[in-house]
Amino acid sequence: MSKLRAKALIAQGGGPTAVINQSLVSIIIELKKYPEIEKIYGSRHGVSGIKKEDFLDLTDVSLENLELVANTPSSALGSTRDKPDSTYCAQMFVAMQKYNIGYFFLIGGNDGASVCDIVNQEAKKVGYELRVIHVPKTIDNDLLVNDHTPGFGSAAKFVAQAFMGVNFDNASLPGVYIGVVMGRHAGFLTASSILAKQTESDGPHLIYTPEKVFNVHHFVRDVKEIYEKYGRCVVAVSEGIVNEEGVPIATKLAKQVEHDAHGNVQLSGTGILGDLLADTVKSLTGISRVRVDTFGYLQRSFVGCVSEVDAKEAREVGYQAVKYALSGDVDGSVVIKRTGDYEINYELVDLSQVAHKTKSMPEEFFISDSMVSEAFINYVKPLAGELPRVGKLEVIKVK
Amino acid sequence: MSKLRAKALIAQGGGPTAVINQSLVSIIIELKKYPEIEKIYGSRHGVSGIKKEDFLDLTDVSLENLELVANTPSSALGSTRDKPDSTYCAQMFVAMQKYNIGYFFLIGGNDGASVCDIVNQEAKKVGYELRVIHVPKTIDNDLLVNDHTPGFGSAAKFVAQAFMGVNFDNASLPGVYIGVVMGRHAGFLTASSILAKQTESDGPHLIYTPEKVFNVHHFVRDVKEIYEKYGRCVVAVSEGIVNEEGVPIATKLAKQVEHDAHGNVQLSGTGILGDLLADTVKSLTGISRVRVDTFGYLQRSFVGCVSEVDAKEAREVGYQAVKYALSGDVDGSVVIKRTGDYEINYELVDLSQVAHKTKSMPEEFFISDSMVSEAFINYVKPLAGELPRVGKLEVIKVK
Repeated sequence: MSKLRAKALIAQGGGPTAVINQSLVSIIIELKKYPEIEKIYGSRHGVSGIKKEDFLDLTDVSLENLELVANTPSSALGSTRDKPDSTYCAQMFVAMQKYNIGYFFLIGGNDGASVCDIVNQEAKKVGYELRVIHVPKTIDNDLLVNDHTPGFGSAAKFVAQAFMGVNFDNASLPGVYIGVVMGRHAGFLTASSILAKQTESDGPHLIYTPEKVFNVHHFVRDVKEIYEKYGRCVVAVSEGIVNEEGVPIATKLAKQVEHDAHGNVQLSGTGILGDLLADTVKSLTGISRVRVDTFGYLQRSFVGCVSEVDAKEAREVGYQAVKYALSGDVDGSVVIKRTGDYEINYELVDLSQVAHKTKSMPEEFFISDSMVSEAFINYVKPLAGELPRVGKLEVIKVK
Repeated sequence: MSKLRAKALIAQGGGPTAVINQSLVSIIIELKKYPEIEKIYGSRHGVSGIKKEDFLDLTDVSLENLELVANTPSSALGSTRDKPDSTYCAQMFVAMQKYNIGYFFLIGGNDGASVCDIVNQEAKKVGYELRVIHVPKTIDNDLLVNDHTPGFGSAAKFVAQAFMGVNFDNASLPGVYIGVVMGRHAGFLTASSILAKQTESDGPHLIYTPEKVFNVHHFVRDVKEIYEKYGRCVVAVSEGIVNEEGVPIATKLAKQVEHDAHGNVQLSGTGILGDLLADTVKSLTGISRVRVDTFGYLQRSFVGCVSEVDAKEAREVGYQAVKYALSGDVDGSVVIKRTGDYEINYELVDLSQVAHKTKSMPEEFFISDSMVSEAFINYVKPLAGELPRVGKLEVIKVK
């Protein structure tokens, strides 16, 4: 086993999660056990901080402060949407060499894995010795190879608790309620709303994800049918739902389509999709009380809604990452595999296996274009963890 | 003391809260102690259920089920926005007389108090013996005479925890973040976002409520100033903010202005105000990353975010209501008064004192048009209760 005496650098990329700092903290704690680690640095705002040599010294942060940060949502080091090319990477290596950085941990989603892959390739090309480990996180749960990803479970818990509440709210003041959930290409998070459903008459009654074509006429027909049956209807919709041509419904609407650095259309941080869907239901069904909420950033950053399993696994992927990085001259992505009900283990796979592409919900997780299956419920339940107990009055109607 | 042998009827009105069922449950539990109460009925969907004789028998609901319901957000009996006139009331009395209802408890906001007042006046006119007790609830916290109202504390806790999270999210991926909070005329809930602020640089940096004129130019100027100082800006805005003429900013926008039965413009369940504010900031400042969330119904119905103080007081107002109703031929509204730091007591006041009008934030709760005062923080802190501990990394920048 070759020991590499060098500094370690940690960065966080992409959208924050409720537990991403658990991974950051466990990497720091674990790295401190190895004498060959000279210093532990954190890069401010992901790869952009490397290019700019904007580093924080994490070596001597107190355990008390680390534990506080671990329980704080959002990326404590700051994040970025930058995706480096060869020129960008070259600038990063200049900084890395200057600071003798030999270990690079990036906590991120598939864009993060792509960054790791690019950095790793470029490092090899220029003969720069760097151990690059990608640590998974994303509320979208769309990383290849992984059974699921840290961050998803807590977001799923938030979405479930939100729909538990709005289901009762909608029963109290009946009408149509539409909740727009994050998810550009994968519907896992939107589908997690199913955990709110306790009985047949409970919402969500309809669930629309990007995996299925969103047909406006079917949507209106289905809402009407549920409304006629229960006097109300609760709908969960992914922000990324697409039409027959695969074009996001939201894109058709945005007067000014805003793109982020990865070429993605902005879907979050606007209520436009929800308002369109509500207007459509109102005008085509005549139902007067139609309400919509776009859950937005609360899904990934709300304080006080964390799945314990998720927090534990987010911490564990950090430990695993360090273990792999210190075991020899390796690069790779830490992945979570499900081995039982409920059991998992961790592996290190090639960066290219996780980078560039994303995962969608498999066909077995659906029973129709607007409803998920029992298989999905069994899949998601242990990830979201225990939910608060709520219920209806058990009463007899007076004759 | 005159004992009235009759049935008791409970109804819930207006927007649900996270703890409104605590009051319902305590009224039921307390009523069961009095032998003169023949039966305990619940009206489905508030006063509309009385007119339609749509009653539930709550007399023998198990304690276990009651406790489950107490911990469930939203009105378990169903709610309504109906505001009865004389004809409507006459129809209600027909039903009430038929069922020998002598006690009427309505858990509601100021519209609920108005309903109680009207029903009470009409009952007196037609010589119908009815003890009418209004039990306070509203997340808006806008009831006259009351120091605060059950439901507000939990909603304030939700708003605080939401802003705690988005503050860190916004620090991680800097830009302008606007959170639109419920509140038609009163800014208490929006102002509660201040509980998220731990240090000077933390958001919310700006807080806009309906008590102050919302000047778009000042808003844009202030956002720009904060953004230049901190590289980011977090804003809390009430849905009911108004312009110089007192017209809601949202009203000017809504192509189709939808009114509810109380003549109020629909402000919730749409993202229109937030999107307008975001577009305004983008176009007038040139800041590219501007995001907005409209918190919507989650504020009042999210499962798993309850202030313990709020839950306790919501239960207590129910007990008090029964105590008053059974003490003699009285009508009135139970109110909460603050007597210490933190101590309260309960009183019964005339229905007309709480009905019809609403309360706004007093001038001492502001230090400017866009920021609340220390006095407000001291006021709201005990109501929202304990918040999760979160924090930043304490690190040294590498030179």
